[in-house]
Amino acid sequence: MKKIEVGVLGATGMVGQRFVSLLRNHPWFDLAWLAASDRSAGKSYGEACSWRLREPMPESVRTMRVGECKPGGAPQLLFASLDSKVAGEVEKEFARAGHVVVSNSSNHRMDEDVPLLIPEVNPDHLALVRVQRQQRRWSGMIVTNPNCTAVGLVMSLAPLHAAFGIEKVMMTSMQAISGAGYPGVPTLDILGNVIPYIAGEEEKVERETQKLLGKLTDVQVQPSKIVVSAHCNRVLVEDGHTESISVSLNGKASLQDLIGVWRKYRSRPQELHLPSAPAHPIVVRDENDRPQVRLDVESERGMAIVIGRIRHCAVLQFKYTALSHNTIRGAAGAALLNAELMKAEGYLE
Amino acid sequence: MKKIEVGVLGATGMVGQRFVSLLRNHPWFDLAWLAASDRSAGKSYGEACSWRLREPMPESVRTMRVGECKPGGAPQLLFASLDSKVAGEVEKEFARAGHVVVSNSSNHRMDEDVPLLIPEVNPDHLALVRVQRQQRRWSGMIVTNPNCTAVGLVMSLAPLHAAFGIEKVMMTSMQAISGAGYPGVPTLDILGNVIPYIAGEEEKVERETQKLLGKLTDVQVQPSKIVVSAHCNRVLVEDGHTESISVSLNGKASLQDLIGVWRKYRSRPQELHLPSAPAHPIVVRDENDRPQVRLDVESERGMAIVIGRIRHCAVLQFKYTALSHNTIRGAAGAALLNAELMKAEGYLE
Amino acid sequence: MKKIEVGVLGATGMVGQRFVSLLRNHPWFDLAWLAASDRSAGKSYGEACSWRLREPMPESVRTMRVGECKPGGAPQLLFASLDSKVAGEVEKEFARAGHVVVSNSSNHRMDEDVPLLIPEVNPDHLALVRVQRQQRRWSGMIVTNPNCTAVGLVMSLAPLHAAFGIEKVMMTSMQAISGAGYPGVPTLDILGNVIPYIAGEEEKVERETQKLLGKLTDVQVQPSKIVVSAHCNRVLVEDGHTESISVSLNGKASLQDLIGVWRKYRSRPQELHLPSAPAHPIVVRDENDRPQVRLDVESERGMAIVIGRIRHCAVLQFKYTALSHNTIRGAAGAALLNAELMKAEGYLE
Amino acid sequence: MKKIEVGVLGATGMVGQRFVSLLRNHPWFDLAWLAASDRSAGKSYGEACSWRLREPMPESVRTMRVGECKPGGAPQLLFASLDSKVAGEVEKEFARAGHVVVSNSSNHRMDEDVPLLIPEVNPDHLALVRVQRQQRRWSGMIVTNPNCTAVGLVMSLAPLHAAFGIEKVMMTSMQAISGAGYPGVPTLDILGNVIPYIAGEEEKVERETQKLLGKLTDVQVQPSKIVVSAHCNRVLVEDGHTESISVSLNGKASLQDLIGVWRKYRSRPQELHLPSAPAHPIVVRDENDRPQVRLDVESERGMAIVIGRIRHCAVLQFKYTALSHNTIRGAAGAALLNAELMKAEGYLE
Repeated sequence: MKKIEVGVLGATGMVGQRFVSLLRNHPWFDLAWLAASDRSAGKSYGEACSWRLREPMPESVRTMRVGECKPGGAPQLLFASLDSKVAGEVEKEFARAGHVVVSNSSNHRMDEDVPLLIPEVNPDHLALVRVQRQQRRWSGMIVTNPNCTAVGLVMSLAPLHAAFGIEKVMMTSMQAISGAGYPGVPTLDILGNVIPYIAGEEEKVERETQKLLGKLTDVQVQPSKIVVSAHCNRVLVEDGHTESISVSLNGKASLQDLIGVWRKYRSRPQELHLPSAPAHPIVVRDENDRPQVRLDVESERGMAIVIGRIRHCAVLQFKYTALSHNTIRGAAGAALLNAELMKAEGYLE
Repeated sequence: MKKIEVGVLGATGMVGQRFVSLLRNHPWFDLAWLAASDRSAGKSYGEACSWRLREPMPESVRTMRVGECKPGGAPQLLFASLDSKVAGEVEKEFARAGHVVVSNSSNHRMDEDVPLLIPEVNPDHLALVRVQRQQRRWSGMIVTNPNCTAVGLVMSLAPLHAAFGIEKVMMTSMQAISGAGYPGVPTLDILGNVIPYIAGEEEKVERETQKLLGKLTDVQVQPSKIVVSAHCNRVLVEDGHTESISVSLNGKASLQDLIGVWRKYRSRPQELHLPSAPAHPIVVRDENDRPQVRLDVESERGMAIVIGRIRHCAVLQFKYTALSHNTIRGAAGAALLNAELMKAEGYLE
Repeated sequence: MKKIEVGVLGATGMVGQRFVSLLRNHPWFDLAWLAASDRSAGKSYGEACSWRLREPMPESVRTMRVGECKPGGAPQLLFASLDSKVAGEVEKEFARAGHVVVSNSSNHRMDEDVPLLIPEVNPDHLALVRVQRQQRRWSGMIVTNPNCTAVGLVMSLAPLHAAFGIEKVMMTSMQAISGAGYPGVPTLDILGNVIPYIAGEEEKVERETQKLLGKLTDVQVQPSKIVVSAHCNRVLVEDGHTESISVSLNGKASLQDLIGVWRKYRSRPQELHLPSAPAHPIVVRDENDRPQVRLDVESERGMAIVIGRIRHCAVLQFKYTALSHNTIRGAAGAALLNAELMKAEGYLE
Repeated sequence: MKKIEVGVLGATGMVGQRFVSLLRNHPWFDLAWLAASDRSAGKSYGEACSWRLREPMPESVRTMRVGECKPGGAPQLLFASLDSKVAGEVEKEFARAGHVVVSNSSNHRMDEDVPLLIPEVNPDHLALVRVQRQQRRWSGMIVTNPNCTAVGLVMSLAPLHAAFGIEKVMMTSMQAISGAGYPGVPTLDILGNVIPYIAGEEEKVERETQKLLGKLTDVQVQPSKIVVSAHCNRVLVEDGHTESISVSLNGKASLQDLIGVWRKYRSRPQELHLPSAPAHPIVVRDENDRPQVRLDVESERGMAIVIGRIRHCAVLQFKYTALSHNTIRGAAGAALLNAELMKAEGYLE
């Protein structure tokens, strides 16, 4: 099979760096094009990018030229992690010009005709792009993945929702600094501190959860009626969002039922053997003090949700802790898996 | 007024050090006696204690001799912060020998005849000591303050409960490492990490909240029926527990009603002008990203609960963030205020 | 005595905030004027300033209007902590307009006719301002304090130099992030890391040390011939520069001689009882693991240099560790003490 | 080739965990035996060990039984990382019983007949074991690797020493907490702090450097006369010792000469293609702010020394920064490479 050429919009940012790193030696995709803001355009990637990942920058990209965020010369398939100040317009411009934009930005996630996708959770929502292309008369399309905090929550809820039905969810997050990009959070703000506010985050988690767990009809997604309340906090962690979650179900279930449902959970990406799909989308830990960022965040190469401390909740029904890697499963890896699903389902032809 | 001589049981630990620090220049109490484990007994305090507070060790205690945790020679009034492995028996031994033990340990908090006290919240519960002394035939007594995480929660709830009645509470904590004592949490466990488990903590928070907000009858406390659910996490913060709280009330209220009730809150310690009482037991911050540990934890010399981000909750009714200083308001300062209340109310005569 | 009105240039930055904090209730100076960059000018200080200090913003400045960095309306005496990109010109403009600019910026420190001053070390260098005013035909003047890393080094060297003569010095710093201002060091750069480079820092330390320990002749400072080599590193500390120092003397001395000289060290600010002068400019700790940032950085309200681990060095003669508070003794407190010296010595009349 | 069975003494500690991790899938060695203190003996490794590494515990060892630190049943080749309180006697007992003890402990490093070895630096010193076995009438032997801080220093010095001769060295370390084992450094000691003291560390660095760079005669090592002075500090880093080094040479050299010598450096482990040998034992970085722990510590799987900031020194001749992974190159990886050298040189037959 000949590899598909891909590009990255916003290649020098934190999520852009993850795209570059995850695309190294990808079996289906070949990174052939990089674009970033005007500040970087025209430089080599090595010059333009303040590389922050612990694994070294792949040698092959070091000398690649960073282009402008303009269609023309770009491959058809593009991963996008632009600043939300510009992402809205730039993504539309590329889609209009015939590109498939697989975006990590929040701008179009809640658009009625844009799929907001977790391949394990709602692969059928991808069909929305047909409505999108028809309505907007685009030859290209935009597909999005959720907010990094929503991903862990929704992946933990989806199998419960399928098995028992969910009624209410309360989630308190302790989020990593890498989610704020680079330079991002000043050390003077977070050293020895907890910041109990991340702009727009709680609203995103609440709305995106309902769209992700919603039902696709012919032309739109009917958002789920699950009641969701989020508290979002920033803590001094590099990568990995920890979430304390309480949930009440419509039906009856035991702790063992929940654990069983989570452990057995396999979905479309696993059936299709997508290259970035985790063998176990949900890893359940038995120890009473897990998941922990430093021990569990790399589970399944950062693509699993790790769940532990499953117990009864006096206010809702059950409570547990979920951990996800915010720049892999919650961002670049999420978009990559979306693109793999699109390829496998014939959306890239 | 002649000062009352006091002692500290467990003087070399983290809370013991706070007692020593807070008792420096106290207007009513004079620190005259120190005791700690056998490892320390016989040494000077300067030698025995690995002082960890940022303010220096008071010169006056440096050369004081650390005694054994045995009655005989100790002043009548004792502050206790012993390891819970030994605290249960030692405290009883001192109370039996006629001492007033004002304890920060968890061992006797839930005993039916032992007051579990926050002077602003349930000063009337102090009357339980009469039952205690009669039943146990003690000339002394034991009085306790709550778990460090319960203090912030309950102080934020108490004025709401008085004004509107509380039905349900969900609390997720992000707790400081000083709560685990010294040496306490190894750096390798917490650097870049969140630990989603603190042994026994959630149960303590849930039960103690009900006792603290319970009603005193002639001979006992009828625990409140408020439904409480706690998620407790450890984060890389030195002093200061941050709590994400959701609450539902029995009655109706607006966000402004809550803020008004909190801002106006004054109680017995403020009426009595107790030396350690904060002028404002609850400080409400208007900024959307407060309270923050590094900016707010010292409010009112660490004796206030700082509240912010007050907003509606989709699952319960309201949500907010509360911050408390876990080794001052949540431990040594709590016990000190208990003793001041006891003095002012005539319990030390 | 009527207080002297003073202003702060660059009032919203990290050092500017320290000026505001240290000037609160100052016995000689009254903070009457604030200026900052165009971004802040016109706003109230409360709005313009992202206050980062642990102590709260003084209420009195919250509503003060932040002006532009232009003479006209400013008091005669100004503390300056402007970004070095603009400080050079702005300070000259104010001095030309008759203001006394007591600056923490590096721009004019090495100018031949500008005093670079540590009041304990080289108070006589202040006389250079006469040359400065004559040569430049200014009615005002510029006086500077050294780089934050040079301060700790030079204060530890000065008494040794006076007593024994110093030949060579090697210094490796472990510097706090607050020295980089706000937003300053991104968390992703420093969490779990050491950065072995701070732009321009080593050169500043080496040159400024020679000027500070140099001899004043009629019209200039003859730099000292002490050979100085600096390695500068950034570590994850909020406030407090730790320095590992080795030194060789011209004469003979024992470890006890050094300790004695440091302990006895008093100088002009102590004689003059300047309000910000530490009683002991140098504090010597006997413990084998001190000084430590978290235990010692506030010594003498952050105005002392704390020295420990004094021992023989196989390469040079002696080695020791010195600690200084980089935004107090190394910046705002340094400038404040300079101004107090100027007042006491009649330079403000 | 049949794999050689090996065991680990002190298998549950931090360095023991590194041994277990590095021996996973080792081409020559097969981990067949684990021993630890009495507290652990008799349990499975999964139970006994508080695993702290970011990579998961290899499944194959989870159920292995942890034995006592007693000969009998142990394989001939043993890696040892016991607490120095017991290591001295235990290692001798095993050597006497015929075992080859490849030790990371400090107890026997300076024994005249025990090789202190860095395979790149002094592979010939291994011959000392012949003297050792003869003198002590042992059928086994003890071979040691240096202190974690000495490794980075000496590997950076060795090629310079060979090319130009070294006269004097000054080294200031900023050491990671993992060097102190587990639980090791309490968070309350190091958060926001630098600790300027590590017991015994400076003496070890100074003496071991001289032995490592010494000359082997028939029966002993003549220590080098290089003058070495060390300042050792602990900082908040997990893995990776950063060292600020100044050096003076006997001969003349330019900065380019040093860089050339380091870049070309290959030695015995590279010639022999030892499995754990780094292709480049020294990696030179050109950027002015490298090496950095978070970006460089994993270079060559933690087996390289990364050097940068090479420049002139006013006091000695040159200065630079060196970084090494303290629990891989500075401990478990060091011992493993020693064993590989021993195997390749015929010492295990």
